[in-house]
Amino acid sequence: MSKQEQKVKVLDCTIRDGGLVNNWDFSEDFVRQVYSSLSAAGVDYMEIGYKNSPKLVKSEGVGPWRFCDDAFIKEVIPEKTKTKLSAIVDVGRVDENDILPANESPLDLIRVACYLKDVDKALELVKFFHQLGYETTINIMAVSNSMEYDLIAALEKINQSPVDVAYIVDSFGSLYNQDFEYLINKFKTHAPDKAFGVHAHNNLQMAFSNTLLSAQSGVTFLDSSIYGMGRAAGNCPTELILGYLKDPQYNVRPVYDVLEKLFIPLRDKIEWGYIIPYTITGQLNEHPRSGMALRKSEQKNAFTAFYDKMTTVETMDSND
Amino acid sequence: MSKQEQKVKVLDCTIRDGGLVNNWDFSEDFVRQVYSSLSAAGVDYMEIGYKNSPKLVKSEGVGPWRFCDDAFIKEVIPEKTKTKLSAIVDVGRVDENDILPANESPLDLIRVACYLKDVDKALELVKFFHQLGYETTINIMAVSNSMEYDLIAALEKINQSPVDVAYIVDSFGSLYNQDFEYLINKFKTHAPDKAFGVHAHNNLQMAFSNTLLSAQSGVTFLDSSIYGMGRAAGNCPTELILGYLKDPQYNVRPVYDVLEKLFIPLRDKIEWGYIIPYTITGQLNEHPRSGMALRKSEQKNAFTAFYDKMTTVETMDSND
Repeated sequence: MSKQEQKVKVLDCTIRDGGLVNNWDFSEDFVRQVYSSLSAAGVDYMEIGYKNSPKLVKSEGVGPWRFCDDAFIKEVIPEKTKTKLSAIVDVGRVDENDILPANESPLDLIRVACYLKDVDKALELVKFFHQLGYETTINIMAVSNSMEYDLIAALEKINQSPVDVAYIVDSFGSLYNQDFEYLINKFKTHAPDKAFGVHAHNNLQMAFSNTLLSAQSGVTFLDSSIYGMGRAAGNCPTELILGYLKDPQYNVRPVYDVLEKLFIPLRDKIEWGYIIPYTITGQLNEHPRSGMALRKSEQKNAFTAFYDKMTTVETMDSND
Repeated sequence: MSKQEQKVKVLDCTIRDGGLVNNWDFSEDFVRQVYSSLSAAGVDYMEIGYKNSPKLVKSEGVGPWRFCDDAFIKEVIPEKTKTKLSAIVDVGRVDENDILPANESPLDLIRVACYLKDVDKALELVKFFHQLGYETTINIMAVSNSMEYDLIAALEKINQSPVDVAYIVDSFGSLYNQDFEYLINKFKTHAPDKAFGVHAHNNLQMAFSNTLLSAQSGVTFLDSSIYGMGRAAGNCPTELILGYLKDPQYNVRPVYDVLEKLFIPLRDKIEWGYIIPYTITGQLNEHPRSGMALRKSEQKNAFTAFYDKMTTVETMDSND
């Protein structure tokens, strides 16, 4: 290998990002089996859901992993192994009164997701979680649609903050290897004191490749999900990352086990992965929501009409 | 982009490699529509099948694209556009009496596939096709399972031969970016007078990424197939390559059109793509045949048992 690979940490976000597909409708037993499998596989972190407040996001018809009540998590996973637990929060959707000190919570890591314009708010939250004793990350979404001077200003603030890890998030799954290389260099230059993470989407079948390239470029936190489960085109598959890493800590076999038992039947009921409307939104560097709407309609395979609509100038105003 | 990208040629091998999935059971109209779509998309070559001899391979229950009779091809595609036609032959399965001079054939390019041990035989065939006026390639299969000094000796012979293009074929879909980088350097060093091609398989979701890396490293012939159709995990999707290339020659829209009309219904009947037993054979650098056998059995989703069988030392003798 020509590039430097450091010791990485694998963060499986199946339940959290997969929940975006099924409204977090995972049974307690399902989540327990996923934790047990990831733990046997040597995975470093399992992201068990969002820790948003039910007062601040829609809670009707939504599973408990959307809110991650501490007592409930302890009930589901009474005995943690070496695999740590994380939850993610969105800026503006978290109630600080819901957050216990880290030593009273089953959660080890809280991640803050934000758009670039909300970095100041996100760093306030990071500071709060950090003071309570949590590990923290800041996950900058939609980085492919930002102005570079905004990104640089944000990275300089991040570098001054207590956050442990700054994440590059390819929200639209539109980035190629060279784009990740470019962004990693920006992150290294403007936040040199931080560790870095990567969260890739698979619209262009680049999620695994971009994650490997990141690992080879010094990024240490690698997000993945079992069978790639995640919104729209999904994520970098955990089984591919574990099959690649040579570190004896990792073992892919338990992931194949839970994949066979839980995820093959689940994929028969709900869809994610390489599905052409998401390829098209990725190629156009667009949010997948228009593709998701198409897939829920009767025209779900009308790819050419969708492509035409997405590439016609008059409709561009409505794309976010 | 940090690396040098030259003008590439896209070679769509949907009918040829896809035929390995359905025994070349494509109707004439299907193949005509594929040609018409690739032509409208600006694709440089369409590989319409094998040109093996029905006397030398099993012909019962096998569609006509396995043999590519010249008169038959002319009947299906009476008017060629700028998209050239190619066929592939296997060493030992071609009857030289079947081959017309190039100026009497609809075929422009004949590719010779071989294992490293058969390079001398392959180069004899290349010479024969070259003398008849065809463009030629040599496609070295299973390059990940060869000894380097054998590969170097073969490349030196290839460099002395009249062949136009030397292909790197990732038969087992087991190669990562760094492996392609390594091989491309070997090819460039030991066959410096030749153009290069790449044929990637998608067992590890690396086919597109490896193809892009190859293009960025000076490889000019890029194989792909619509919706990735091809044996086992399939190939680099044509729609991803065309969506990436900025050259105004290419237009992805006609591929989405034929994908929607022909390939979505076809994929409902037969399978290829990211299917876990092929992930496992890719991770183990094995031929996918054991995975294909599993998928035809009642145990088709018994991934863990398959993984155990494939990684148990006693069974290794039987793997090819």
